[in-house]
Amino acid sequence: MVDVKKEALKINEENAGKIEVNSTVPIDNMEELAIAYTPGVAAVSSAIAENKEDVYKYTSKRNLVAVVTDGSAVLGLGNIGPEAAIPVMEGKAALFKRFANVNAIPISLDTQDTDEIVSHIQAIAPSFGGINLEDISAPRCFEIERRLKETLDIPVFHDDQHGTGIVVLAALYNALKLSDKKMDEVKVVVNGGGAAGVAISKRLLSAGVKDLLVVDIDGIISADDPDLEERHKEIAELTNQENITGDLEEAVKDADVFVGVSAPNVLKKEWVQTMNEKPIIFAMANPDPEIQPDEAKEAGAYIVATGRSDFPNQINNVLAFPGIFRGALDARAADITDDMQNAAAKGIAAVLSEEELTPENIIPDVFNPDVAETVAKSVTDAAK
Amino acid sequence: MVDVKKEALKINEENAGKIEVNSTVPIDNMEELAIAYTPGVAAVSSAIAENKEDVYKYTSKRNLVAVVTDGSAVLGLGNIGPEAAIPVMEGKAALFKRFANVNAIPISLDTQDTDEIVSHIQAIAPSFGGINLEDISAPRCFEIERRLKETLDIPVFHDDQHGTGIVVLAALYNALKLSDKKMDEVKVVVNGGGAAGVAISKRLLSAGVKDLLVVDIDGIISADDPDLEERHKEIAELTNQENITGDLEEAVKDADVFVGVSAPNVLKKEWVQTMNEKPIIFAMANPDPEIQPDEAKEAGAYIVATGRSDFPNQINNVLAFPGIFRGALDARAADITDDMQNAAAKGIAAVLSEEELTPENIIPDVFNPDVAETVAKSVTDAAK
Repeated sequence: MVDVKKEALKINEENAGKIEVNSTVPIDNMEELAIAYTPGVAAVSSAIAENKEDVYKYTSKRNLVAVVTDGSAVLGLGNIGPEAAIPVMEGKAALFKRFANVNAIPISLDTQDTDEIVSHIQAIAPSFGGINLEDISAPRCFEIERRLKETLDIPVFHDDQHGTGIVVLAALYNALKLSDKKMDEVKVVVNGGGAAGVAISKRLLSAGVKDLLVVDIDGIISADDPDLEERHKEIAELTNQENITGDLEEAVKDADVFVGVSAPNVLKKEWVQTMNEKPIIFAMANPDPEIQPDEAKEAGAYIVATGRSDFPNQINNVLAFPGIFRGALDARAADITDDMQNAAAKGIAAVLSEEELTPENIIPDVFNPDVAETVAKSVTDAAK
Repeated sequence: MVDVKKEALKINEENAGKIEVNSTVPIDNMEELAIAYTPGVAAVSSAIAENKEDVYKYTSKRNLVAVVTDGSAVLGLGNIGPEAAIPVMEGKAALFKRFANVNAIPISLDTQDTDEIVSHIQAIAPSFGGINLEDISAPRCFEIERRLKETLDIPVFHDDQHGTGIVVLAALYNALKLSDKKMDEVKVVVNGGGAAGVAISKRLLSAGVKDLLVVDIDGIISADDPDLEERHKEIAELTNQENITGDLEEAVKDADVFVGVSAPNVLKKEWVQTMNEKPIIFAMANPDPEIQPDEAKEAGAYIVATGRSDFPNQINNVLAFPGIFRGALDARAADITDDMQNAAAKGIAAVLSEEELTPENIIPDVFNPDVAETVAKSVTDAAK
């Protein structure tokens, strides 16, 4: 086994990061220079000046995404600033290209002020066909995304929230199919009231889940709670219709599905035994899940998924964002709507045939070449 | 001969513009994914979080330039806006890569407000190793460049001004060598008081020219002129020490060098005959020069250069900007100083050996493979 971190440092130093910008046109003689630059380029600029929509016909905007961060919530490293965030943005850009042939470029912003971030992204938007927000801390990420969606005519997508929601939903589609349960009949518990937990909850509700509890550090989120935090008010309205109170142990009783985006080892084996039959456990805390897969299985879990590649059923955002932007760009969509996100989840789920589907294989491998294409097509169709 | 404009439209439509972003690292299995993205990337981000300077060691910043415009002064097309400017910025990016292996990406800004432009460029600066300002109208371009140079720790270069100045100076070095004249003894007339004319004048003064007149639409610019425009005050102080008044005809009498960045056919044949012996004419109005080369020759011009590729001695910015940024990035220079610009001009001039140097060959061909390398080395040396 190679030392991944050492290798990462080496490969970044040798390559000056992980991306390069190449010319797609030949420039080897005066005629080619005249076509690529002046005077030929004047015809292209004039066409767009006459009809602004032609910017999609003639320029890189058609296939170029800005991966934008302010460096405030990078991986598990926290607020490490714009420079230190660049390697992650480059990695994302490399994945965009590798999995869906989307050109993407890191834009690390030298500010963490919400108004300024919104203004800068609006200003650079003419060059780009889409904006992928990345590693911006909550709650600023919500307002930034909302304001950009309201004002820009290109798709804006905060992958940390929505990407995870989509892949969880994809996994859940297949898990329910295997366990012969229905989306609108299962009880789901989401453990973790941060940006990811809230986004996953909204995605599941949008896909038809009716009975959903979100559990945070202070217990089950409830609209009745007099100490309810401001940031949880919306999700409290949307979930826990019976205003149940209690902790995670209470929440998971009779639950069909546990989704963890919280902390290592917080789901006890005995509690899994109190869940409904054929329990589905998505334990996505990284690198150590909410419960070890073997423990969960021993406790009766029917299906276990994690965020890790060394266990079966890896919930990995890479399954979603490349194909989602591919589809949105192909459709020239102005937004990535709820419908498009649900369609993406169905697309990911549909990559596995009924024969392939087993409790150890509810979600396609990230290198399955059908994923991005299927997601892109689902998203394009939903955009229409 | 192909239809350059038709071909330009075709090639841009087929390729979605002229640039693409590629991954430089393999991502074909889980181990490679772990190195390119998580968890490997955490080591790279952590290294930069500990030592910010390592952003140059480990990321694309080391070799990435933003080609930034507001679309206010695009080619000869004028204020056509950010979208229509993208093809020109992409062309520039393609040239950066082709001639000096610099990664460059178009950033077309959705504002033409000076303060906002400065603020947006400052905000995106962490991702980039340099800023190439392009096609921003005067006088805003001066203030924008000045404020960015004062506040950013990466090179900022307005090619429309400085690139032309550098290539003119390079051509003048070789023209003077051939005509056995000295930089500090010749009389130079620059016709055109716009951004390019002013930049060329400053470059020539910086390289040692003492006797220089700038002629604008109202005649020779003079500090004594009671109607002197605000934008010409600085250049009036720097030039025309004897406060000569008059028009272009008066200015070129006994001049050794005419530099035109003005309009077609404004330099009369008879006036060339009033110039000093071995007149040097750089007639760079595009596509029709200030005087046709054959006419100039008939009138006694010793050396004629234009902006066109179908005449000898093409003054072309492509000779300068790729190598300049290559050199500045290699030296990790915080600025592109006067010294570096003069060194770049000397570098371009030095590409032609004494044997190669003739009145019809004072400046290397843009495809001469030695140009960018020589310029880069000169700039790097000057940066030290």
